[in-house]
Amino acid sequence: MTRFVAVAPSTRPEMFDVLCKSVQDAGATLTSIEEAEGLIWADPSKADLFPEISANAPNLKWIQLPYAGIESFALHLDKQWIWTCGKGIYAREVAETALSLSLSGLKNIHGYARETSWSEPVGRVLGDSRVCILGAGGITQCLLPLLTPFGCDITIVRRHAESLDGANRTVPTSRLFEILPRTDLLILALSLTNETLGIVNKKVFSALPEHAWIVNVARGSHVVTDDLVDALRLGTIGGAALDVTDPEPLPDGHPLWKEPNCLITPHIGNTPEMGLKVLGPFISENVKRFCNNDDLLGLVDVDLGY
Amino acid sequence: MTRFVAVAPSTRPEMFDVLCKSVQDAGATLTSIEEAEGLIWADPSKADLFPEISANAPNLKWIQLPYAGIESFALHLDKQWIWTCGKGIYAREVAETALSLSLSGLKNIHGYARETSWSEPVGRVLGDSRVCILGAGGITQCLLPLLTPFGCDITIVRRHAESLDGANRTVPTSRLFEILPRTDLLILALSLTNETLGIVNKKVFSALPEHAWIVNVARGSHVVTDDLVDALRLGTIGGAALDVTDPEPLPDGHPLWKEPNCLITPHIGNTPEMGLKVLGPFISENVKRFCNNDDLLGLVDVDLGY
Repeated sequence: MTRFVAVAPSTRPEMFDVLCKSVQDAGATLTSIEEAEGLIWADPSKADLFPEISANAPNLKWIQLPYAGIESFALHLDKQWIWTCGKGIYAREVAETALSLSLSGLKNIHGYARETSWSEPVGRVLGDSRVCILGAGGITQCLLPLLTPFGCDITIVRRHAESLDGANRTVPTSRLFEILPRTDLLILALSLTNETLGIVNKKVFSALPEHAWIVNVARGSHVVTDDLVDALRLGTIGGAALDVTDPEPLPDGHPLWKEPNCLITPHIGNTPEMGLKVLGPFISENVKRFCNNDDLLGLVDVDLGY
Repeated sequence: MTRFVAVAPSTRPEMFDVLCKSVQDAGATLTSIEEAEGLIWADPSKADLFPEISANAPNLKWIQLPYAGIESFALHLDKQWIWTCGKGIYAREVAETALSLSLSGLKNIHGYARETSWSEPVGRVLGDSRVCILGAGGITQCLLPLLTPFGCDITIVRRHAESLDGANRTVPTSRLFEILPRTDLLILALSLTNETLGIVNKKVFSALPEHAWIVNVARGSHVVTDDLVDALRLGTIGGAALDVTDPEPLPDGHPLWKEPNCLITPHIGNTPEMGLKVLGPFISENVKRFCNNDDLLGLVDVDLGY
């Protein structure tokens, strides 16, 4: 059956157009917010507009958010509606970024890129390394097959200890500090919640071996930035490759820009260009499911906040 | 049966010691060059000493060279002896370097590494790309499993068209120019011979799409360096990531150091540290085989020169 679906806000015209087309492609009726049963949110940076918009939507049952990281909606999540988000849809690209940053860091590619003279080979191989991944969502599930041929020993640290294909072991967060001393590479691929904010801090840096690298493709505020600056300055860890930072964007003159063992990429995990390419078909699929009363993809657990 | 094996020259003490130990571990009798039936060559940079040393070895049957690239011995290769080399033993590490350079180049990690300010996301994903690999030896065989999870379309270009597991197709070198226009990433992993010297030149650059990246983990002189400088300056190709250069080491002030889309790593494919770790056990194994009259590993085809 066809259902009434609105796209809002229209502050980001290119995304708005793609999402309107996705709704129509799925066979739903593209409608105003006043009539809408479903709402496709079309600007991740404008969460503050949500209360006003939803107040005009008396028939609203379902809200689709466009990105995987939905912390800006934390205050608005309300069980009167069904919430879905883009979790998993960029996972493949972000996993590729995670592997790229891991290899670049371990092999000192950031260092060589800055040279204008031949230097001595330094760095480590990823093959046979001990890798610890925080989080077991879509990114991790896409990253594990990329890591498999390297023969790494992989530990997943997650909220509960349910095991994951492709990992050597899965442990609950409470056991993180048992794993850290046996970690060559720590990859952050978890959701940002109250429990995981600042989870990587000076205690974590101290527990890691001095050669260990940290790769963050999750959210900047998983890492306590000042603690990271200290760890890099003191050589407590081998280095950090960050696709996300806190604050983000990282301001000019921030000490991280000057650390020789820090590689910063400007949130390239999913570029805007690849974003809409995968977002459009995903939204169409979910609108189809909404029309057919099928299970929706990317369901948000309102209590857990992701 | 035990056989007489010498290690020479002794110009590189650390390598010399490791190789002497490998000979003894294998149960052979470590002997002087005058008595030797087998000779383990212990300094890749001293090929010029070979005529003098071999002239004193009347019983010599077998020569083991320590590296995979044996072009410095091209003039000395002589069918009166059996020649073996280290081909394949560093392949896994070099394949890891090839993937690292590929991801770094496509994702602009070299560019971000040089920034001191947040910038716009640029770059491409490796996933689903069209990859062309020149050469089908040990490096390629180790690289294919690393590429498999990325879902790339992979063409191998080699001397003959015998197919390789993990590649979508294998074509002979004569068909290279059919493949180049459909290539996002060109990886050089072939041996250096008279036929492959300068194989990547301005014709190749012109045939590639403008966004294509080139990765060289083989030998610097596969690439005509001046043509590469022109191609990078003119934007004929997307960029080049080079673990080997011609000349090597690349001198200070060389134009390649200044090209924004050029990433140069100082022959990190196999570092000296990882080298001896894998070379020692390999030499032991081959000495054992020599003593037992078993097939030797890394046999050199004297006519082909690799």
